[in-house]
Amino acid sequence: MAGNTFGSLFKLTTFGESHGAAIGGIIDGCPAGLELDMDMIQHEMDRRKPGQSAIVTQRKEPDTVEFYSGIFEGKTTGVPIGFAIHNTNQKSHDYSHIKETYRPSHADYVYDQKYGHRDYRGGGRSSARETASRVVAGAIAKQLLSDIKINAFVASVGDISIDKPYHELDFSLTESNPVRCPDVEKAAEMEEKIRQIRKEGDTIGGTVMCVLQNVPVGLGEPVFDKLHAELGKAMLSINAVKGFEYGSGFAGSKMKGSEHNDIFNADGTTKTNLSGGIQGGISNGMDIYFTVAFKPVATIMQSQDTINKDGDIVEMQGKGRHDPCVVPRAVPIVEAMAALVLADYYLINRTIKL
Amino acid sequence: MAGNTFGSLFKLTTFGESHGAAIGGIIDGCPAGLELDMDMIQHEMDRRKPGQSAIVTQRKEPDTVEFYSGIFEGKTTGVPIGFAIHNTNQKSHDYSHIKETYRPSHADYVYDQKYGHRDYRGGGRSSARETASRVVAGAIAKQLLSDIKINAFVASVGDISIDKPYHELDFSLTESNPVRCPDVEKAAEMEEKIRQIRKEGDTIGGTVMCVLQNVPVGLGEPVFDKLHAELGKAMLSINAVKGFEYGSGFAGSKMKGSEHNDIFNADGTTKTNLSGGIQGGISNGMDIYFTVAFKPVATIMQSQDTINKDGDIVEMQGKGRHDPCVVPRAVPIVEAMAALVLADYYLINRTIKL
Amino acid sequence: MAGNTFGSLFKLTTFGESHGAAIGGIIDGCPAGLELDMDMIQHEMDRRKPGQSAIVTQRKEPDTVEFYSGIFEGKTTGVPIGFAIHNTNQKSHDYSHIKETYRPSHADYVYDQKYGHRDYRGGGRSSARETASRVVAGAIAKQLLSDIKINAFVASVGDISIDKPYHELDFSLTESNPVRCPDVEKAAEMEEKIRQIRKEGDTIGGTVMCVLQNVPVGLGEPVFDKLHAELGKAMLSINAVKGFEYGSGFAGSKMKGSEHNDIFNADGTTKTNLSGGIQGGISNGMDIYFTVAFKPVATIMQSQDTINKDGDIVEMQGKGRHDPCVVPRAVPIVEAMAALVLADYYLINRTIKL
Amino acid sequence: MAGNTFGSLFKLTTFGESHGAAIGGIIDGCPAGLELDMDMIQHEMDRRKPGQSAIVTQRKEPDTVEFYSGIFEGKTTGVPIGFAIHNTNQKSHDYSHIKETYRPSHADYVYDQKYGHRDYRGGGRSSARETASRVVAGAIAKQLLSDIKINAFVASVGDISIDKPYHELDFSLTESNPVRCPDVEKAAEMEEKIRQIRKEGDTIGGTVMCVLQNVPVGLGEPVFDKLHAELGKAMLSINAVKGFEYGSGFAGSKMKGSEHNDIFNADGTTKTNLSGGIQGGISNGMDIYFTVAFKPVATIMQSQDTINKDGDIVEMQGKGRHDPCVVPRAVPIVEAMAALVLADYYLINRTIKL
Repeated sequence: MAGNTFGSLFKLTTFGESHGAAIGGIIDGCPAGLELDMDMIQHEMDRRKPGQSAIVTQRKEPDTVEFYSGIFEGKTTGVPIGFAIHNTNQKSHDYSHIKETYRPSHADYVYDQKYGHRDYRGGGRSSARETASRVVAGAIAKQLLSDIKINAFVASVGDISIDKPYHELDFSLTESNPVRCPDVEKAAEMEEKIRQIRKEGDTIGGTVMCVLQNVPVGLGEPVFDKLHAELGKAMLSINAVKGFEYGSGFAGSKMKGSEHNDIFNADGTTKTNLSGGIQGGISNGMDIYFTVAFKPVATIMQSQDTINKDGDIVEMQGKGRHDPCVVPRAVPIVEAMAALVLADYYLINRTIKL
Repeated sequence: MAGNTFGSLFKLTTFGESHGAAIGGIIDGCPAGLELDMDMIQHEMDRRKPGQSAIVTQRKEPDTVEFYSGIFEGKTTGVPIGFAIHNTNQKSHDYSHIKETYRPSHADYVYDQKYGHRDYRGGGRSSARETASRVVAGAIAKQLLSDIKINAFVASVGDISIDKPYHELDFSLTESNPVRCPDVEKAAEMEEKIRQIRKEGDTIGGTVMCVLQNVPVGLGEPVFDKLHAELGKAMLSINAVKGFEYGSGFAGSKMKGSEHNDIFNADGTTKTNLSGGIQGGISNGMDIYFTVAFKPVATIMQSQDTINKDGDIVEMQGKGRHDPCVVPRAVPIVEAMAALVLADYYLINRTIKL
Repeated sequence: MAGNTFGSLFKLTTFGESHGAAIGGIIDGCPAGLELDMDMIQHEMDRRKPGQSAIVTQRKEPDTVEFYSGIFEGKTTGVPIGFAIHNTNQKSHDYSHIKETYRPSHADYVYDQKYGHRDYRGGGRSSARETASRVVAGAIAKQLLSDIKINAFVASVGDISIDKPYHELDFSLTESNPVRCPDVEKAAEMEEKIRQIRKEGDTIGGTVMCVLQNVPVGLGEPVFDKLHAELGKAMLSINAVKGFEYGSGFAGSKMKGSEHNDIFNADGTTKTNLSGGIQGGISNGMDIYFTVAFKPVATIMQSQDTINKDGDIVEMQGKGRHDPCVVPRAVPIVEAMAALVLADYYLINRTIKL
Repeated sequence: MAGNTFGSLFKLTTFGESHGAAIGGIIDGCPAGLELDMDMIQHEMDRRKPGQSAIVTQRKEPDTVEFYSGIFEGKTTGVPIGFAIHNTNQKSHDYSHIKETYRPSHADYVYDQKYGHRDYRGGGRSSARETASRVVAGAIAKQLLSDIKINAFVASVGDISIDKPYHELDFSLTESNPVRCPDVEKAAEMEEKIRQIRKEGDTIGGTVMCVLQNVPVGLGEPVFDKLHAELGKAMLSINAVKGFEYGSGFAGSKMKGSEHNDIFNADGTTKTNLSGGIQGGISNGMDIYFTVAFKPVATIMQSQDTINKDGDIVEMQGKGRHDPCVVPRAVPIVEAMAALVLADYYLINRTIKL
């Protein structure tokens, strides 16, 4: 209820604030007998961590995961996997500028209103630092679902966007550039854009697209827990997300049925895929693809007016090392959340037939 | 797990297929002591029901709700509210044309693949008929939250869309036309469009916008169950939905932080509201607004190729009375789902502080 | 949360008050493809229904179940099974004697205190009439688990109790007498006891024992959801239950480890079974057996002092037709709840290994 | 589902094996603004820890809790409280004697059967070491419910039992002796009994009684989640528990209604309390009392026959430092679980009325 658990059978519960002692979580429901590649987990962490390239925040956090339980002799045992990531960057910063002041378009104000008491150091619980725990669990979910290919990438930064359909892209190029855009020419433009924005002390939004391939037919639950509904929730739960669409998405709302319907081939595949691989909330075996919109990071290095606890108007300037654009680091988080959704439905699907 | 329950404290579980004996549900967790206006509930049902105007399906279903429990002397008692809507339109139709055949862009194929056995009469469980139960529960949720104003309306049909911001609209005009669009000139265009599409035996998509006003500060749970994540899931769980965005939405991904940040007034309200009334997943007291994209209805009155169970290519033509455009009838469903989300968070919020 | 749902994967939600229009429920998560024997379901209902013999309440309720969904061509489809039992005995009784008065050892007082508003006709939601819905779901769970033998029986009435171990009993005799005691001599004594108690206008308690045979090894979840913990909760949730023990039970607390340990045979079975078929919360393949204690029914036909809403002491005498002893009718309810627990763990168990 | 979470609104999820790196958990849903007494938490841990007296296991584990999140400036913030207890006693023991061998009446065999792969060091996840995490959460729940008095104590060891009713006992004497029995004469007998049993290399069972006083009227949910059903499940989930009874318990099954009914006083209290403070699953304001039966610890220092993985009969002798009787250390665990149940219902109760 309190909103810190994701999933029902493959279940992640997380804890931790940006500047507390540690963040971490418990993965409950991972099947026993899964041989884990620990390097792959750390590799996923490295894709998300700060300081990885010149266009992301320059904070230094190694983000090393310690596992406490649930893994024995290299394999999962079916009992909960507890883990923690100790915050090394937790020095006695000076937070006086935000202790009493609410940063615009941050969650400071609503946390105070909701709970009456908040950890004002950095974003506390509302910081995207929490997503590191998601990447840990997502990496394990990916290993559980090794047959499914999960590829996210940056589709746009500001108004620079890939204009090819995804099947013309080579996903192996995604990691070839710091933007994580498989269209390398666009990637260069995006990178330049981000550098320029950072120079202005400003930030910029963007979109991440994600393609799920080789998903078996039948994942997803009818009615409330449709596969795309859960994917949508998963993505909207990532910090800074403002929109989600799958298949034909918003463009589909302008189409006619005669244009939009996906006609079957004899083998159950379809000639087109405007449905985005999902019918009635259930995967149909075609590629699932969706796009996630991220707003620009709220912390900017320009001076802004804001208010303090007493309701006085005060001037505030962003401090510290922040991302000028969140989408390059969001790519592994989008993948992790997609993996968590799929892992859950994969397990549920074992229970639905005699 | 099986996906037929929505909500955690104000909880709706539904049952029923389009052509079974009855559909219905159980509302568990509605607080005791709520005086119910039963006419208002039926009124909401009438906004959703078929046959209500010339531009929707002409099927006749009175959609009369029978309540079995949980209401005594006109007030809720705190125990489950069981209800059913008997299907009066359940004659011995001839379903031979769909028994063995999979309709394009419908869920027939995936249900068969997933469950191995399906009720092939109409859409069965995948039919939007199920949403009638949501409207019942949503009507009760609305009565619980009588201080909050929930206004959904049709924002576009195909490429005809309202071009005013929502605060320039008069929501009292939404019900003045069969399209449910408060911009009456656009409504006329949309209506004309739908009539023409129907004549072509085709269907058309559209969008519904929804505005939540007077929401108290503090609703929504951090991390996975952010208010907009749950709203997104609720909307994406409605049949035919392909996308969801709130606040600045997809357009926000093209903006800079310096343009996007909502600067505070001294009283905690904000000068702009690109955030869409939610920060860090928690309502901030400003208007919450979001848009939902619906694809065109898959059943068209034109001939299409499809396949049958044996994988033979067969020709199929839509039969029966179907909606040429789903958005006018979707308006009360969007409102109902928004009400269910808010009711849940409203109850959760009673538990989070000492 | 509101306590009207049982189970996590095989999930029953119930509604209904003793004197409302109907009681019923939704079974969500029953696997698709289960061929249902509808007569067996009604047979289970008949074992629970009032008026079945001279030693139970003489109320007449046919308890006919109507199924609304989830079953098609005789088989489950994997979607929710909605059902209702209409209350035929719902005449305009005179409830004035209990409207303002709290019956001793009934839930009237606490419902009023908790909810502020209650359906005072009969027991309302607190009536054991609700258990009829459990028997419906339990009957379906039994059919799902047809390999497992579930045998409950009356083990004692007042101080008359079976003194043989369960494996010396012939369960086929349980239904041979109205008490549902497989030791027919004891059954005769118990029946006589119940007749005499009823003549006195009094009631008497008793115990029900239940034996689960042929349960596969491995059912039950470690830590909080141990198999016996869930069985205990299931039994304690039945009206009038005051205690639960399994295996050696309370007697085991007086034993030494050297006496209590069950020594293995080479095939993994054990020579003794003081453990009651469960180790560490997980079934070990041996018989599971447990005993449930029921208090005497609170409604007696003798005059008692009690209080009304205003706190006045008033005299009250039981009215209507009530059970002098609840255990004969409790037998099918105990079996139903055991079946629900096992069905849930049976499905969970499909998800725990690679 | 996987059984490692307890509670719905005040929710504890635990992880950890007896000989892994750490055990711990996440408490989600503790209301914000609770000032925490950290010494009291450690004090509760000390009541459970090994080595605390001569009659418990002599293992040395300091059981120091590290909190990672959710507490700021001494108060809860409403976000998850993550914590860990590092295992200091985790030396490279020799486990060869149990790696391939199943200890009688332990969970080794069923874990292997269920998961196919188990941490064989000590009891792994099935060890009662896990209950340390419950005591952490229970201590916080107790602080949340500071008005409610929760007193557990040892009521019997083997066949030595307190024969006074609980209201003749002075609970302040419970901690005056290592047995945790407030009847000091019986305590001396019990202590002597335990010493003697240990000398024999044997173990002995016992019972713990728990009394909850000052519980407000109205806690508990009707139907499946009755207050006593959840208390029963909580207790049965503690390692080695075989039975649970509340109020009149098993003895109540021998009584008549005329003897068992609790007659009201004018103020809503009752003259007797055979009901045990709960009616229809809801607290009535009277004392709640229940008894929990523990079997003798399975690890004995005597030689026993058992089997190995290959099904060979082998001889085994208990090694290490084990408890001769579990009930003295179970007292704080029983209290912790009772506190968790009450905390959950206390929060639920805020949501049930208008």
